[in-house]
Amino acid sequence: MTPNASLPTPTQAADSLCAIGRRFHARGWVLGTSGNFSVVTCRDPLRLSITASSLDKGSLEASHILDVDDACAVHGGHGNPSAETLLHFEIVRRRGAGAVLHTHSIWGTLLSDSHGLDGGLTIEGYEMLKGLDGVRTHEHREWVPIVSNDQDMTRLARIVGGTLDRHPDVHGILLQRHGLYTWGTSLAEAVRHIEILEFLFETIGRTATYRQYRSRGGQHGIAQGS
Amino acid sequence: MTPNASLPTPTQAADSLCAIGRRFHARGWVLGTSGNFSVVTCRDPLRLSITASSLDKGSLEASHILDVDDACAVHGGHGNPSAETLLHFEIVRRRGAGAVLHTHSIWGTLLSDSHGLDGGLTIEGYEMLKGLDGVRTHEHREWVPIVSNDQDMTRLARIVGGTLDRHPDVHGILLQRHGLYTWGTSLAEAVRHIEILEFLFETIGRTATYRQYRSRGGQHGIAQGS
Amino acid sequence: MTPNASLPTPTQAADSLCAIGRRFHARGWVLGTSGNFSVVTCRDPLRLSITASSLDKGSLEASHILDVDDACAVHGGHGNPSAETLLHFEIVRRRGAGAVLHTHSIWGTLLSDSHGLDGGLTIEGYEMLKGLDGVRTHEHREWVPIVSNDQDMTRLARIVGGTLDRHPDVHGILLQRHGLYTWGTSLAEAVRHIEILEFLFETIGRTATYRQYRSRGGQHGIAQGS
Amino acid sequence: MTPNASLPTPTQAADSLCAIGRRFHARGWVLGTSGNFSVVTCRDPLRLSITASSLDKGSLEASHILDVDDACAVHGGHGNPSAETLLHFEIVRRRGAGAVLHTHSIWGTLLSDSHGLDGGLTIEGYEMLKGLDGVRTHEHREWVPIVSNDQDMTRLARIVGGTLDRHPDVHGILLQRHGLYTWGTSLAEAVRHIEILEFLFETIGRTATYRQYRSRGGQHGIAQGS
Repeated sequence: MTPNASLPTPTQAADSLCAIGRRFHARGWVLGTSGNFSVVTCRDPLRLSITASSLDKGSLEASHILDVDDACAVHGGHGNPSAETLLHFEIVRRRGAGAVLHTHSIWGTLLSDSHGLDGGLTIEGYEMLKGLDGVRTHEHREWVPIVSNDQDMTRLARIVGGTLDRHPDVHGILLQRHGLYTWGTSLAEAVRHIEILEFLFETIGRTATYRQYRSRGGQHGIAQGS
Repeated sequence: MTPNASLPTPTQAADSLCAIGRRFHARGWVLGTSGNFSVVTCRDPLRLSITASSLDKGSLEASHILDVDDACAVHGGHGNPSAETLLHFEIVRRRGAGAVLHTHSIWGTLLSDSHGLDGGLTIEGYEMLKGLDGVRTHEHREWVPIVSNDQDMTRLARIVGGTLDRHPDVHGILLQRHGLYTWGTSLAEAVRHIEILEFLFETIGRTATYRQYRSRGGQHGIAQGS
Repeated sequence: MTPNASLPTPTQAADSLCAIGRRFHARGWVLGTSGNFSVVTCRDPLRLSITASSLDKGSLEASHILDVDDACAVHGGHGNPSAETLLHFEIVRRRGAGAVLHTHSIWGTLLSDSHGLDGGLTIEGYEMLKGLDGVRTHEHREWVPIVSNDQDMTRLARIVGGTLDRHPDVHGILLQRHGLYTWGTSLAEAVRHIEILEFLFETIGRTATYRQYRSRGGQHGIAQGS
Repeated sequence: MTPNASLPTPTQAADSLCAIGRRFHARGWVLGTSGNFSVVTCRDPLRLSITASSLDKGSLEASHILDVDDACAVHGGHGNPSAETLLHFEIVRRRGAGAVLHTHSIWGTLLSDSHGLDGGLTIEGYEMLKGLDGVRTHEHREWVPIVSNDQDMTRLARIVGGTLDRHPDVHGILLQRHGLYTWGTSLAEAVRHIEILEFLFETIGRTATYRQYRSRGGQHGIAQGS
C-alpha cells in the first residue's frame, strides 16, 4: 500500500460514504444499523470521516458522517461515534489505510461462526483473489483471521492490532459472528476488497454444500424424465 | 421501550408505510398481498394508521392506509382493515408499541414451520442481536416464540397476547408457516427489528445447512485441481 | 372467477405488460428471452395483448406487445406471436381468465424437474396460499400439476387443456424443466398468483434442504465458541 | 451465426457496455473489478470496443471503454486494455462473434471448480437452452468446456482457441475458479447467452443440493404440525 497524497475533504468523504451505505444496504450487507465506514481526511494530525453510531446505513445523510480526531472527539456532524471507531483508528495506524469498511453479511457471519475455532480460514486458487491489493495470480493463498467478538472495544482493538502485526499480508479480518473489516489505500480500494471478500465467502459457503452432493457420487444436468 | 411523545400524523404515517412497503417488497418479504404495517397516531383514544387488506405492498398509495380506532372502525382511507388488525392492537396495548410490522419471508416461513413443535427458537451469540431494543451485548439469548397459525383472529390475538405476557423480553413472534410480527417504540425501531430478525433467520437457516457439511469432516477453500 | 366487465384497452394492456416485464426480470424470473404475458382486451371476439416472441422482458416497449385474435393473426404491434400463444388462448378459454402469465424461475424449474415423475406437487398448510383466488384458509391443499415439456404446441395446448379440465381447482401448472403458467380474472390477480406460487416454490425447495439437517438431530442458533 | 452488417460505432458500443456493466453488477456477476466486455466495431481491420482493466463495472463511463486494434494498441478511451483482451480477439476470430462477454458469478465459479477435473459439464433437457443461438428444442445437450485458469494469457488464449475448434457447437467456456466467457453475433445475443448460462448454472447447482434430499426419501410441502 502506498501513501495517498490526495485525501478527500470531509464533505467529499461524507457524500461517498452515504452512497456506499445505500449500495451495501441494497445487497443486505449492513441491515439493521450494522456496519460502519470511515475515510482518512488528514494524516497529521490524523482525522477520520466516520459513520455515526446506530444509524440505518441505507438512508445516511451527510450530517450523519462525523469528523473525528484520534481521541474520538467530534469536530463535525451530528451524532456519536460508535465504540468501534477505535478499531478503525487501529487499522488506519497499523496499515496506513486511507479507508476502513465494516460489513455484516450473512455469509461472513456464517463462516466466522463455523470456523471460529480454527482461528481463521484459507481462501486459495480463485481468480477473484487477484483483485486484492498486491496479489498477482490466482495461485495465491489468502488467510482471513477470525477474532473472537468482544464488547470491550479497547481490548478488541488491541487484539485486532496484534493480529494485524502477526499477519502482515492479510487483507481483512472477521470478527466472530459479527462481520468483516477490510481497508484500502483509497475508499475505492476498500470497496473493491469488500466486494471480493464477500464474493469469496459466499462462493466458499455454497461450494461446501454443493460438494457434499458430489462426494456421494451425484450426477447433474442429465435429468431426463426426472 | 419508552413512550414516544411525538407521534406522526396520519398523513406522515401513510407516507412512511408506503415507503416501507416498496422497500420490503423489493426484498421479497411481502410478496403476493402478504404482510401488514401499522403506526400509532394517537394514544388516547388509541388510533392506528394501518395498511388496508389484500393489497400489493410494493405499490401502496397513501389512500390505502386506513385510520382506524380500537373497535376497527375506519375514519380515513379507502378499503377494509384486515382481520389481523386485531393482532396489531393486541401488540400495541401489551407492549406500548408505536409501530407494528408483519413480514412474510421465506426464511421466517421455513423456520416457523420446521421449529413449530418446539414452540419457538433460540438465537444466541450474534453481534446483530445488539440492534434489538435493550440488548447490550452479543452474549444475549433471544427466544422467538412460534404460535400456531389460526384463521380465528379473536382467538389468535388472545394467544399472541398471552405469549407476550409470558415472555416479556421477546422482540418478535413467529406465526407458524405464516411470518413474523415485531414492533418498536417508533416505526424506525420496528423496521430495524424486522431487518435484524430476518437477517438472523436467514443466517441460522444457512448455517445449519453449512454445518452438515462440516460435521462430516469437510474442508473448504483449498481447492487445487478441483 | 367472475367475468370482468372492464377490460383494458390494448394501449393500457401494453403499458402494464412492459412494467411487469421489468419487475419480473429484476427478480430473475424471465431471464434470457424466457417468459410471456397476455391480457384479454376483448371477449367477443376474443382478443389478447401478448408479448412478441424472443424479446428481453426487462426492456419491453409498447410496440413489442401484439394485439392477436384467436387464430393468432396479429392486428397491432411489431414482431411475431410466440408458439406458446396457443397455451394462453387455451387457458383463457378453459378458465375464463382475463390475464395469463408465464415465468421461468430457478425454483420452478428445479421443482418441475425433480417432481416431474410424480405428475405434480402438493403445497399445504401455508398462510400464503390464502392469496390464491377462492382460498380462505391456510388449511388448504393446493395441487400443482406438472406437464411434460413439448415443442409441439398444438399437442401441448391439448394436454394443458385436459389437465385444466381434470383439475378444476388448480391455480397454476408447471411445464417440466420449463416454468410456471398461472392466470387471474385481472392482470393484478395473475401477478399476485405468480408472486405467491414462486414464493411457495422457493420455500418448499429451501425447507427440504433445511430438514435434511434437522432429521439428523441438528441444533441451531446455540453457537458458543463455534 | 451470420455476419452482422450493421456494426455499432465506438460511441454506441461504449454506451451499451456501460449499461451492461450496471446491470450485471447489480446481479453480482462482476463484483470487485471482475468481468470484461467487448463489441466489434469494425471487421476489416478488426477493431474492438472493450472495457479497460481494473475498473468497477457498476460505474463505468464511456471514457473507460477502449477502442483497440488486434495488436492491442489503444486508439481511443482512457486506461489500459486488460491482458484478457487476447481472449476476446481469439473468440471473435474463431467464432466470427460481434460481442464477447465475461462474467464472474458465484455459481459459475462454483461449478467450474467442482467439475474442473471432468473438463466440462453437460446441461440437458431445459427449455431455457432454446435461447442459445441455433438451439431449437429443450432436448438439446449442451457441453460447457472448463479450461484451467492461467495467468499467461498468450498460452490461455491458445488453449481457449483450441477448445473452440474441437467443440464447434459450444456457446460458452468456463475458466476454472474464474468465470464464464460467452459471445454472440450482436451484443444483445451475447447478453442473452450470459443470462441463460448463468440461470442454468444456478439451476444445476441448486438442483443437485435438492436431490440429495429427495434421494433419501424426503417428502415436502406436507408439513402439518411441523
